[in-house]
Amino acid sequence: MSDIKLKVEENATLTEDALKSFFDAHRDTTLYKAMKYSTMCGGKRIRPFLVLEFCKLLGGGEDAAMPYACALEMIHTFSLIHDDLPCMDNDDMRRGKPTNHKVFGEAPALLAGDALIFSAFECAMSNTNVTAESKLKAVETLALASGAEGMCEGQMIDIASEGKKLEFDELLNLHAHKTGALIRVAAKLGVIAAGGDNAALKAADTYGAGVGLAFQIIDDILDKYGSTEELGKPVGSDAKNEKTTFLSFMSVKDAMEYAKKVTDEACAAISGYENSETLIDLANMLLNRKS
Amino acid sequence: MSDIKLKVEENATLTEDALKSFFDAHRDTTLYKAMKYSTMCGGKRIRPFLVLEFCKLLGGGEDAAMPYACALEMIHTFSLIHDDLPCMDNDDMRRGKPTNHKVFGEAPALLAGDALIFSAFECAMSNTNVTAESKLKAVETLALASGAEGMCEGQMIDIASEGKKLEFDELLNLHAHKTGALIRVAAKLGVIAAGGDNAALKAADTYGAGVGLAFQIIDDILDKYGSTEELGKPVGSDAKNEKTTFLSFMSVKDAMEYAKKVTDEACAAISGYENSETLIDLANMLLNRKS
Repeated sequence: MSDIKLKVEENATLTEDALKSFFDAHRDTTLYKAMKYSTMCGGKRIRPFLVLEFCKLLGGGEDAAMPYACALEMIHTFSLIHDDLPCMDNDDMRRGKPTNHKVFGEAPALLAGDALIFSAFECAMSNTNVTAESKLKAVETLALASGAEGMCEGQMIDIASEGKKLEFDELLNLHAHKTGALIRVAAKLGVIAAGGDNAALKAADTYGAGVGLAFQIIDDILDKYGSTEELGKPVGSDAKNEKTTFLSFMSVKDAMEYAKKVTDEACAAISGYENSETLIDLANMLLNRKS
Repeated sequence: MSDIKLKVEENATLTEDALKSFFDAHRDTTLYKAMKYSTMCGGKRIRPFLVLEFCKLLGGGEDAAMPYACALEMIHTFSLIHDDLPCMDNDDMRRGKPTNHKVFGEAPALLAGDALIFSAFECAMSNTNVTAESKLKAVETLALASGAEGMCEGQMIDIASEGKKLEFDELLNLHAHKTGALIRVAAKLGVIAAGGDNAALKAADTYGAGVGLAFQIIDDILDKYGSTEELGKPVGSDAKNEKTTFLSFMSVKDAMEYAKKVTDEACAAISGYENSETLIDLANMLLNRKS
């Protein structure tokens, strides 16, 4: 296993330990069970990794970053639970397991998603290794990235786009909100945890935007040309759902070049910082992934 | 019109102006339209009134209280939107208007509720008339009262109670979470806006708990003995839905006495403060309401 893959895996374990600690410190009600089920359902934990690595890049410690990393992962999880609901994508399975509403029922899944948002803010507030200023900035940044200015708006655009052919600008706008916002905020939360300045915040934002966009381009390529075996999920869903993708506008070769270009731009934004190798390796790992 | 009713109405207008300002400062997307539709859908705005009056009681100004009052009203509105969804109560009408999902569709209503939570935190963070400490306390208190330790847990208990006969303790626990949590946090946010001490927070909490409980007892009485005309909604829904209510345990006379007792306890908790008349009048107005 490559160095960066190992680091990502190690960080996923750390994040899961911290998430588990959060739930262990609360009651064991059905609602918490439902929240925990989806939060602990695996995944690469790329967003928490970004929070921790950007905090390290700016000289901050893991303790300062982890509560923000967990908060963000809870918001990511809420979005997956609500996205899977019958009125949204109506998905029965996620990461090889039954979706939240398939296990707990639709109303409990709705409430588990809702409650995870509040737990995210509670978790961010529990950060004892940062300044009050950092926490206020974290809450504000998380709220803006997740709600009607960010991810929720992205999901709304996605719904409105169903069955429509999007222009290229519209496709970029969709992804910038739907998936880009949370990846950008991950990088920024790391800077906020470390008490970094505005220049660092801007660099993190540029890195997050580039990596997020490349991620989506690769997603589109893998959905068309990947293997179900490697991906662990059916391919061809974009074509089946008549979705506009990057491959609606360019060949797979051009799409790969485009993804490489935005990845390079992402890396350039942080290459001036010492010890930026890990984040550069991560960007390239995500660019070259097969699943 | 009595003095207290006039004050409540004046405050509702102030709150609606502030909520409108929040939305005016944002874009006019479909998502914001859906969020605004339910937020501006009327109601007595009792929770914002409590925030403002408790802030005044502790010597704070309206400017310090209003962003918290609006934040809380957004969270209250989110809970109504999600509560009305087909997978929850499946209600078509609220306050004489079609519910959010009837106007915008189910997925947009889900997202509008989600996004209102984030807007609530954004709005609380926008408070420039309080200390950083106040904002951090407000975020923490709001998160705990709204999520899996508060309101969301109440809705979960409500779902799990369907078709079951509850014990009296279980009924109290249900209402303490489902409606009590947000009323208690309203009073507490006022104290937090004014920078009040722990004794004031405790008094606000006791007042909110009493008023919230009395509110629910009266609700149960009105559902059984009120008139559809005065209430503006059908009566007898509790019996139809076989819900356990306070009238499952006591006569209407005893329920009224019980409501009066907890209202008196609520008032006693704040009677030591100068200028507590408005909040005492409010508690009695809610006790004696016919709708």
